[in-house]
Amino acid sequence: MRELTFSHDDIQTMEKRFRTRLVNSISGFKSANLIGTRDEQGQENLAIVSSVVHLGSHPPLLGFIVRPCKTPRHTLQNIIETKSFTVNSVNDKIFQKAHQTSARYSKSISEFNEVGLTPYYDGNCPAPFVLESSLKIALTLKERIDIKSNDTVMLIGEVNTIHVPRMAIMHDGFLDLDALGTVTISGLDSYHRTKRINRLSYAKPDKSVFPLTTDGEPSSWAAVNPVPE
Amino acid sequence: MRELTFSHDDIQTMEKRFRTRLVNSISGFKSANLIGTRDEQGQENLAIVSSVVHLGSHPPLLGFIVRPCKTPRHTLQNIIETKSFTVNSVNDKIFQKAHQTSARYSKSISEFNEVGLTPYYDGNCPAPFVLESSLKIALTLKERIDIKSNDTVMLIGEVNTIHVPRMAIMHDGFLDLDALGTVTISGLDSYHRTKRINRLSYAKPDKSVFPLTTDGEPSSWAAVNPVPE
Repeated sequence: MRELTFSHDDIQTMEKRFRTRLVNSISGFKSANLIGTRDEQGQENLAIVSSVVHLGSHPPLLGFIVRPCKTPRHTLQNIIETKSFTVNSVNDKIFQKAHQTSARYSKSISEFNEVGLTPYYDGNCPAPFVLESSLKIALTLKERIDIKSNDTVMLIGEVNTIHVPRMAIMHDGFLDLDALGTVTISGLDSYHRTKRINRLSYAKPDKSVFPLTTDGEPSSWAAVNPVPE
Repeated sequence: MRELTFSHDDIQTMEKRFRTRLVNSISGFKSANLIGTRDEQGQENLAIVSSVVHLGSHPPLLGFIVRPCKTPRHTLQNIIETKSFTVNSVNDKIFQKAHQTSARYSKSISEFNEVGLTPYYDGNCPAPFVLESSLKIALTLKERIDIKSNDTVMLIGEVNTIHVPRMAIMHDGFLDLDALGTVTISGLDSYHRTKRINRLSYAKPDKSVFPLTTDGEPSSWAAVNPVPE
């Protein structure tokens, strides 16, 4: 395979859109999620985001990046205002509608209506979930970080509630995202299905990792809530 | 599909490892990269990281999360010391070796040797690349952010150099990660192959998105560097 090298100068001087697509591709595959919010007047907003990242499990924290000068600026405003937002996984049945939310709609327009997704309220979270999303998470704003290097913002939320289909929860807590049809994003605009190769054992210095053939030790939760065969 | 709800209390009180696996799963698919570093004495270190995220294209910035109390703490030390690191994509030929780097080796041990991957130097970047990785990126430390919510650290690097196979670069700058065998991670330990469904058009408020049938307008770079048929 012939290899090409882009130097710092090449990247600085290349055509702008070419650079944007290239640099958006190099980090690897990204999560595909819809962020649901509402402003204080009840106006709903929905935005696809590919930067949601796991920050920690205890407390359970997710973060994502917002570019204040671009969409999803309404998302940022609403979260600052209400401290509440939802993260909803994108699956292979709704990825086109999800992508459509990245258009620059004015603030008075609900992306739910425009793209044909259904707002859903669980009675606890003030922000709307996406009914068509199988994995729905309610979060409370915990921290806002201003990234000086490029004037972006990282918002960090603590997970309050997780709604997920029973069949996707493995004995040991792992979620089978393949089974939910969850997609992954590469670059700015490419959507991918996934297929599990293997889960691997916990790595130890004195032993090679090996593929897990079961989904681990049944946990206390699974013992109380056995998965039906 | 029967849906389950985990409340804030459920998450707080569930068995620790079950919670870790569950919360690690909910953000969706993650990038799979190996971070290569060296300390000032030349001791090499290699660590798999699933939190590399795109922060911006101009300047070209990537970020990732480090838990200072855990592996990859040597990665953090080395980057603070030398300001230099590499990000190397994990593919389906090396994912077991990549996963093995997450074992807690002592600082005097090179994970390259232990897992059987080859350090590669390009003559410019002081940090080692992974020879077996098809997509190799050299970065300089740009910003360190301490995340108060859970005492983790986000390191932000500016991209200096990108090494990538010619065949993976589409006319418009998009990289075909499927073609490189790049894997994606879910949860703590699950590795997945990917298959592109579609690239989608740039979303506009007055028009529905549609699948791209070509890889976009040839850019100025592609005009000068035509892709061989």
